[in-house]
Amino acid sequence: MKGIFITVEGVEGCGKSTQILLLKAYLESRGREVIVTREPGGTAIAETIRSILLDPENAALSPMAEAFLYAAARAQHVDERIRPALEAGKVVLSDRFADSTTAYQGAGRQLPEETIQSLHSMATRGTWPHLTIVVDVPAEEGLKRAGHVNPPDRIEMEPIEFHRGVREAFLQIAQNDPARVHVVDGTRSVEAVAAAVRDLVEPLLGDL
Amino acid sequence: MKGIFITVEGVEGCGKSTQILLLKAYLESRGREVIVTREPGGTAIAETIRSILLDPENAALSPMAEAFLYAAARAQHVDERIRPALEAGKVVLSDRFADSTTAYQGAGRQLPEETIQSLHSMATRGTWPHLTIVVDVPAEEGLKRAGHVNPPDRIEMEPIEFHRGVREAFLQIAQNDPARVHVVDGTRSVEAVAAAVRDLVEPLLGDL
Repeated sequence: MKGIFITVEGVEGCGKSTQILLLKAYLESRGREVIVTREPGGTAIAETIRSILLDPENAALSPMAEAFLYAAARAQHVDERIRPALEAGKVVLSDRFADSTTAYQGAGRQLPEETIQSLHSMATRGTWPHLTIVVDVPAEEGLKRAGHVNPPDRIEMEPIEFHRGVREAFLQIAQNDPARVHVVDGTRSVEAVAAAVRDLVEPLLGDL
Repeated sequence: MKGIFITVEGVEGCGKSTQILLLKAYLESRGREVIVTREPGGTAIAETIRSILLDPENAALSPMAEAFLYAAARAQHVDERIRPALEAGKVVLSDRFADSTTAYQGAGRQLPEETIQSLHSMATRGTWPHLTIVVDVPAEEGLKRAGHVNPPDRIEMEPIEFHRGVREAFLQIAQNDPARVHVVDGTRSVEAVAAAVRDLVEPLLGDL
């Protein structure tokens, strides 16, 4: 694969989407072709699955069914969009990817580590990010920010302890895989965070 | 678990649904409380997933994403409907269950055996049929019957070779697990098939 696969992770409202748009503009100014995508979603079928996952009506969704739906959306996203873009040499920026399943379904829903790893393996079949950036903010701050924009979805409606556990899980993922996963402090100004993100991405550009 | 879990499998148009209704009436005449359900489906969330799976618009659905969606629907169905009914001592009759994934996603879509087993384990967590009846008809005959009722769904639109492979897979499943899975010849009259089905179910009733 000639492309670069970068994922941005973090709790709701951490500022991922803003940072992805700024990073896209930066990469394009460096002459790269960039696609911006998100999970769950990124293809028509996966966006349909997203609507099931985020619909507050689906409160009865079981943890395992939820994990399978995320995996279904991811498998479709990888096959239909991410892998072809990487093979075409593009930079793929994804707002969430497999680490969100580790954090939300593993830590949040307490599914066994083995289950999570098995889902990752089947859904990604080896298409894995070159770089993952965790935009870290306290769960309370993220939810407050997210709440300013839209009514809460099914995941945002979870209690604060759930979101605190998710934040801790992202920090743990970064500790476990320091070569791939880097944490930036998302409580700073948008421009300060963007500069930190660019510093992390720069070495990947030099490689090509 | 005090209930009895019976699944009925076979190619499209084999006559499963008719046999399930006749079996339900018979079991009720024997004083049993029966719920009839189906896969994918059986709960509100799983029926929503079903609509994604069967929609001919979703031709781009990848084999792995498809398998995850069936697994999601199954996990929800088991947790929300099948297991509670069995714990309440009911007879659960399901039109399709995990063997359909073995046949359609394993044999039909050529997903690895290991993948299929892993999905089964995660989706069912040990809730497995006491008895599975394969209503066997040639794929051509089943599709002809199914075509008389409704326009074809995404699965029915697959070429005849696909459905032939699915039929063979059901027969193989019965060979591999003869204690649980029994084949009845579905080309006979509805009443003759129903009698064969009752003969298979009878020993389970005696146990209770």
